[in-house]
Amino acid sequence: MSERRISLDELNAASREVFVATLGDIFEHAPWVAEAAAASRPFATVAALHGAMMRAVETAPANRQLAFLGGHPELAGKVARAGAMTAASVDEQGSLGLDRLSEAEFQRFGTLNAAYRARYGFPFIVCVRRHTRDSILDQFARRLENAREVELKAALAEIGYITRLRLVTEVDGPGVPQTTGRLSTHVLDTVLGRPAGGVRVVLEEIGASGRGRLVDTRTNPDGRTDVPLMGGAPLRIGTYELAFHIGGYFAERRLVAAEPAFLDVVPIRFAIAEPEGHYHVPLLASPWSYTTYRGS
Amino acid sequence: MSERRISLDELNAASREVFVATLGDIFEHAPWVAEAAAASRPFATVAALHGAMMRAVETAPANRQLAFLGGHPELAGKVARAGAMTAASVDEQGSLGLDRLSEAEFQRFGTLNAAYRARYGFPFIVCVRRHTRDSILDQFARRLENAREVELKAALAEIGYITRLRLVTEVDGPGVPQTTGRLSTHVLDTVLGRPAGGVRVVLEEIGASGRGRLVDTRTNPDGRTDVPLMGGAPLRIGTYELAFHIGGYFAERRLVAAEPAFLDVVPIRFAIAEPEGHYHVPLLASPWSYTTYRGS
Amino acid sequence: MSERRISLDELNAASREVFVATLGDIFEHAPWVAEAAAASRPFATVAALHGAMMRAVETAPANRQLAFLGGHPELAGKVARAGAMTAASVDEQGSLGLDRLSEAEFQRFGTLNAAYRARYGFPFIVCVRRHTRDSILDQFARRLENAREVELKAALAEIGYITRLRLVTEVDGPGVPQTTGRLSTHVLDTVLGRPAGGVRVVLEEIGASGRGRLVDTRTNPDGRTDVPLMGGAPLRIGTYELAFHIGGYFAERRLVAAEPAFLDVVPIRFAIAEPEGHYHVPLLASPWSYTTYRGS
Amino acid sequence: MSERRISLDELNAASREVFVATLGDIFEHAPWVAEAAAASRPFATVAALHGAMMRAVETAPANRQLAFLGGHPELAGKVARAGAMTAASVDEQGSLGLDRLSEAEFQRFGTLNAAYRARYGFPFIVCVRRHTRDSILDQFARRLENAREVELKAALAEIGYITRLRLVTEVDGPGVPQTTGRLSTHVLDTVLGRPAGGVRVVLEEIGASGRGRLVDTRTNPDGRTDVPLMGGAPLRIGTYELAFHIGGYFAERRLVAAEPAFLDVVPIRFAIAEPEGHYHVPLLASPWSYTTYRGS
Repeated sequence: MSERRISLDELNAASREVFVATLGDIFEHAPWVAEAAAASRPFATVAALHGAMMRAVETAPANRQLAFLGGHPELAGKVARAGAMTAASVDEQGSLGLDRLSEAEFQRFGTLNAAYRARYGFPFIVCVRRHTRDSILDQFARRLENAREVELKAALAEIGYITRLRLVTEVDGPGVPQTTGRLSTHVLDTVLGRPAGGVRVVLEEIGASGRGRLVDTRTNPDGRTDVPLMGGAPLRIGTYELAFHIGGYFAERRLVAAEPAFLDVVPIRFAIAEPEGHYHVPLLASPWSYTTYRGS
Repeated sequence: MSERRISLDELNAASREVFVATLGDIFEHAPWVAEAAAASRPFATVAALHGAMMRAVETAPANRQLAFLGGHPELAGKVARAGAMTAASVDEQGSLGLDRLSEAEFQRFGTLNAAYRARYGFPFIVCVRRHTRDSILDQFARRLENAREVELKAALAEIGYITRLRLVTEVDGPGVPQTTGRLSTHVLDTVLGRPAGGVRVVLEEIGASGRGRLVDTRTNPDGRTDVPLMGGAPLRIGTYELAFHIGGYFAERRLVAAEPAFLDVVPIRFAIAEPEGHYHVPLLASPWSYTTYRGS
Repeated sequence: MSERRISLDELNAASREVFVATLGDIFEHAPWVAEAAAASRPFATVAALHGAMMRAVETAPANRQLAFLGGHPELAGKVARAGAMTAASVDEQGSLGLDRLSEAEFQRFGTLNAAYRARYGFPFIVCVRRHTRDSILDQFARRLENAREVELKAALAEIGYITRLRLVTEVDGPGVPQTTGRLSTHVLDTVLGRPAGGVRVVLEEIGASGRGRLVDTRTNPDGRTDVPLMGGAPLRIGTYELAFHIGGYFAERRLVAAEPAFLDVVPIRFAIAEPEGHYHVPLLASPWSYTTYRGS
Repeated sequence: MSERRISLDELNAASREVFVATLGDIFEHAPWVAEAAAASRPFATVAALHGAMMRAVETAPANRQLAFLGGHPELAGKVARAGAMTAASVDEQGSLGLDRLSEAEFQRFGTLNAAYRARYGFPFIVCVRRHTRDSILDQFARRLENAREVELKAALAEIGYITRLRLVTEVDGPGVPQTTGRLSTHVLDTVLGRPAGGVRVVLEEIGASGRGRLVDTRTNPDGRTDVPLMGGAPLRIGTYELAFHIGGYFAERRLVAAEPAFLDVVPIRFAIAEPEGHYHVPLLASPWSYTTYRGS
């Protein structure tokens, strides 16, 4: 994020040169997008500004559009290794560990990239901030089966996600598009009819090749966590597991008769499909029963 | 199990010699237990026969009782390796993999055995058929903190479990004590209000050092499994996980909107504490919510 | 029900005269149905016998079919009052209280009957044993909107239900069609993880004009009722309410902190739509939470 | 409520005469309570002010305490009919319909009042704003079994509730004691994994002699009601029923296969025991299953 975000008002009032200088990097190597949008000022909302920039891309002549798509780095590609990406791209790919791939994974991405470029004539583009590594690979395989025009739309949709995220780090103002998601929980003790405080809650990402611990916390007296389990950024599409350590909670209240307790660590495995959504995943528990659901 | 179980009627009518020859091995190296019980015939139930044998042990003079306890093999001990156990003991310890311990595990058991014998003057006795490897180690550590008289009772209780199991494989008749447990499940689709058939269900034992797959099956049209997940023997005290693959079930019925589905594999982790109990662990599921409980 | 049911074997072997004398009343005032079926003997199942009789009706010439339908008594009609129905029809209509209507209700049925006969040319026929009074009125109003050919099929389907019920009271043998339903329950205590015994359970029928108590019982130690709440006959389509008195149950176990208890009598209101179905309506309850569902 | 509440600061700074004139009616016919409290100024919180006034009552000599209790009107008593109560008492008793009792109910209260006064020497005092009519009668019968010293404490506790409510309508400032409760709900559709909007929700009070409708509303798109079902005042101890009309909700979404639907109106009956508590009573529902609980 910039030191300071520029306000939409300032952008609306700025000279064309300042406007383009400020937003020229939002669309990868394509300052002409900002130039086109400059003419449509003033914008009432940040979302309207982003919409105008996207329209410039969507209505560009085919060869210009293709050159624009072609200007994007390959995912985990040679360009990444050689250091020729924009700073934003470097940051985005690094967030997923795509710059720390094993040689085998690097080969796998290389093969997919080559197949993709051979089929569509432009590199595979995806908004990596909205994905786990597994869901990227999943998308890659699935999108390789699209017809070209379907895939062109898919690529532009991803451009939309990528640039929306970049834009909101640069520009402040009314009508900022929703780019963040949230995962929250709530533990309720159905024996005593009140929130279960002090319950350890561990969140892990579940990948094809292993698990990664993301959060290890405890519920507060209201049965919630003091901060959302995830938030402040898009959620990454993928599979997760929450582990609720309710055995200890009930043991402390002498509510468990069996030894070992029937329920100790309760795992709840679920997938996130909407990076900008709110996932509320509560647990209603007694020592012998529990219910979970996607709440709101 | 014997080729054929002898009937309680036959035992009641048999000569003292035949009675003792038949039941002399039920209590490890202690035919005097059968001898004592022979005098109390006839028995109306197999449970009464077992009770009479247990009373003979419980009321034996202290030194005889101690000699009897001392006649039991050490768990995973040198005797086991050297092959001096009764056939029943060999079979019991082998069922848990105690004859296939790593050198480190063998050392661990050795240390515990030595500490136990030093403290109480007799070997650690546990009915291994009612335990997983983890719960044996757990018991071992916990029982080492018992006062001697508490531990003596604990050892005799385990003798009761062990010999009850041996007895029911030898003797048939009315009033056979309950020596087997059962784990069953039922999957209900709360969207359609009917049993969920064809759902893959995998049962694993969860140990401190890993997981072991015990069952991999599918529910039948009634939402149950054709045979209980576990049964026909004592359940082993320990932690288990059932994995219900409901994602595919709902996808086939076009009941899932999200991609990836919020719920795919639903893990239910629970502990078994009563080897002779019935654990019914059902799943009531929609694509976004589920409930589980210990049923009956 | 007859003193003794005749066996299918006997019917298969009987003379045509005996066969018709035995089954001639199954279809109201239409011994020709039994005559037609007699020629198709032998029948392997009772269901096949019933199917042959239904086919005789369905394939009869239009005027004969119409005369057959016209031979049925009006629901709660003048014929009923005048005493000209078959004994079976008298019994069936009485089971619902249709012979004890108030003058206003009698008028309402009279108006509907007249409208129906005017529209379709035959009386409204419904298998009353499968309905509550409310669902009869509901059906009546709804079926009056059917096209004639749709309604002709509906009337024949009801004839099928009526005669199937009559047939199984007369004939015994393999392949008896399913004509009975069942309502059962199960109360589970999720605090203690076991069946809740001794819980009072009251079943009522909920009608537009009031409630009628059908059952007032208690759960046994297995959390079930000793006999099904309803069974041994078709369930009546309609709305019901089960009231589970769990407040007292939890109070006896000192599991309730609040005064008055949050949950005392738990009402579960549900409708039965399949008279031959099994409705299992369990309650999983703690003092502060419960779950119910249609089980199996 | 007064036109304008006086601030705690003003009261702290006021002359003794103004202080007593302002708060002299808070304790029924007992300006000496305000006089005693005036000396303890300044108060940091409204709760501290109330505490000081209560201490004045609790530490008063026995005969003064008794005279104070004796100064309270009988519930639904002759004084009420004759119009000699303070305005606040009139308002409080009227809120419950105690001024519109049938002759039989008036007699019942009269008998209880007489028995109570005969036993304890002062009238039955209860904070009626925290009760339904049924819970008043329930309290009356139960408290008549108390030993005198227990009952004296109970009467003073009720004085505390009554005067706390009066005080917060007169005085504003920091540390206002919690005198209001709240009932809220949330309807979640577990088939679609989202809030169920547009569901009709009816709240009734369930009394021994009948039901009274309190609220008839619909859920908003977030599955909640725009305003709490009850709030802004103490909740009345008593039994309530929420009726959720989910049948129509699911029918509109073509999620119901059966006719009539298994679930149409879902009644949730519960009791409120804590007038100042938050009762969140949600419904998680599919067409065939639901869960409810006291949430937070």
